[in-house]
Amino acid sequence: MRDYDLHHHGDREVGPGLVDLAVNVRLPRPPAWLRDELASALDTLAAYPSSSEAAAAVAARHGRAVDEVLVTAGAAEAFTLLASALRPRRAVVVHPQFTEPEAALRAAGHDVSRVILSEEDGFVLDPALVPADADLVFVGNPTNPTSVLHPASALLALTRPGRLLVVDEAFLDAVPGEGESLAGGHPGVVVLRSLTKTWGLAGLRAGYVLAEPEVVERLRAVQVPWSVSTLAAVATVACCRPSSLEEAEKLAVAAEEDRDYLVSGLASAGVPVLGEPRGPFVLVRIPDGAAVRDRLRDAGYAVRRGDTFPGLGPDHLRLAVRDRATTDAFLKALEEVR
Amino acid sequence: MRDYDLHHHGDREVGPGLVDLAVNVRLPRPPAWLRDELASALDTLAAYPSSSEAAAAVAARHGRAVDEVLVTAGAAEAFTLLASALRPRRAVVVHPQFTEPEAALRAAGHDVSRVILSEEDGFVLDPALVPADADLVFVGNPTNPTSVLHPASALLALTRPGRLLVVDEAFLDAVPGEGESLAGGHPGVVVLRSLTKTWGLAGLRAGYVLAEPEVVERLRAVQVPWSVSTLAAVATVACCRPSSLEEAEKLAVAAEEDRDYLVSGLASAGVPVLGEPRGPFVLVRIPDGAAVRDRLRDAGYAVRRGDTFPGLGPDHLRLAVRDRATTDAFLKALEEVR
Repeated sequence: MRDYDLHHHGDREVGPGLVDLAVNVRLPRPPAWLRDELASALDTLAAYPSSSEAAAAVAARHGRAVDEVLVTAGAAEAFTLLASALRPRRAVVVHPQFTEPEAALRAAGHDVSRVILSEEDGFVLDPALVPADADLVFVGNPTNPTSVLHPASALLALTRPGRLLVVDEAFLDAVPGEGESLAGGHPGVVVLRSLTKTWGLAGLRAGYVLAEPEVVERLRAVQVPWSVSTLAAVATVACCRPSSLEEAEKLAVAAEEDRDYLVSGLASAGVPVLGEPRGPFVLVRIPDGAAVRDRLRDAGYAVRRGDTFPGLGPDHLRLAVRDRATTDAFLKALEEVR
Repeated sequence: MRDYDLHHHGDREVGPGLVDLAVNVRLPRPPAWLRDELASALDTLAAYPSSSEAAAAVAARHGRAVDEVLVTAGAAEAFTLLASALRPRRAVVVHPQFTEPEAALRAAGHDVSRVILSEEDGFVLDPALVPADADLVFVGNPTNPTSVLHPASALLALTRPGRLLVVDEAFLDAVPGEGESLAGGHPGVVVLRSLTKTWGLAGLRAGYVLAEPEVVERLRAVQVPWSVSTLAAVATVACCRPSSLEEAEKLAVAAEEDRDYLVSGLASAGVPVLGEPRGPFVLVRIPDGAAVRDRLRDAGYAVRRGDTFPGLGPDHLRLAVRDRATTDAFLKALEEVR
């Protein structure tokens, strides 16, 4: 098995003076109303944090019971909690996808079987590829880095007694209407969410888990006390408000338009996007991709290398969806360096 | 073995309208200069956090190499990392002390042997009490809840090849001069620090580990990626500055004076303090303590119950050191309810 750097992430590819198409955070900073709420909360930092209100807000947003919610210090913490709390006989990660689930499982001493979706088939989820004896399965939806959104029916076809299906929905609030989400609750399904991407909060560490109460309880038992900071809890409450959900939907629609613009531009440039992208980023394959990436850096653009994702290689590059002006300038730079 | 609620902490004892002598955070909010720095950093939250600058600042503050520092989401995270990363044959926790180390060890599946220091001897650390085959030993210094400061020589007498000694120095920056600290670096010694108590930052989750590079590397391998938020990293840099250390020293001197005042007042009230307190809190034993605590709550004062600490019982109460006016009012209330 090739050795992938599972801990490599887009944040390592950005640098001073570079236009960032490597990191999938959409806003350059949290919106003003959210910064104001966080600023007000600085006065309350002497008290130990509590995530009770945040859990209630998340439960109300998704129509779940409070004991089906665990607020976490970003989705990244959730992977570690799952890896620590569970004792899978056979853990399967469906790749290409975000590499932290596999890294967390391995760090906790578990073996991991990889299922690699086929690029030729557009990275479509084929439930038959997952071994029948897998009792813990990780899938991203929409998947980072392919941007493919799997149908809820294909995901539910992966559920069965004795198996936990973990669906990483960190980017699902960037899909208008949040179609194909399993956040509403299904037996044997664990859903992970993040506030990072939509709200420009990667630095704050805010996310949550939706699962059956017994799973939540097992994760809570291994969670670091006071793991969720006061500000992350405040942000979670704020981002679950109906007005915030409306704003997120508008951002999602705008991202979709911007993505369509990027996809067309890439097609005109002779760089077809792989799969059917539904998230705020796209995956491409460019001959001599590693060299193209280096030359893009020289031209002032950071893009995400693909070769750290199992199933992808050095010719794969992930591009974040940005506004049209940035996309135009990027496409021009890409044309020049190819 | 009696069953203690190891996850009970003072923050559960405070409540609306109560004067808080239960939680050992000293400032009612972070100082204005620190809140201003945190407010400025809200603009940078879209980027993933990095603790590199914070680690460099901690290393410089303690005269350590950067690879001897791990910045953590509070000291609480450090306990979980130690419990996850290490495979002790015999883990020993020296009680009475903060209960999270034992809770983290048990949550990770380790057995824990308890060494209970004697109240009659003033909770003095007797190295001979620790079993020779212990390969992982946890001690607090100054110890929560006894407030006793162990001599560095007694701690170093606990070190030996093949053993890791973990010294929780979460309250040591509240001791003027930081005497008896092992933060400077000793073979086989792991030191934990917190920014919570002195700077009013319990809600932010900021702390760090000082240890030999190979220990730091093992802990880092199981740490949740991006575990330390941007704001915690900013606070760590800020609190390591010479001007901040000077301010902390002044706060420590003031806390010492306030503690002496509290101790005298308690002595006059016929409530002797146990051990020799050196931290910003004291431990007392009051006949019918549980009922006294309830009546203090009715009178508007939250104090920390002692019976969740192995080695202590319902008559033990921990009292945070506050300013003289608060202490005067508290002593009056105590007199009335006894």
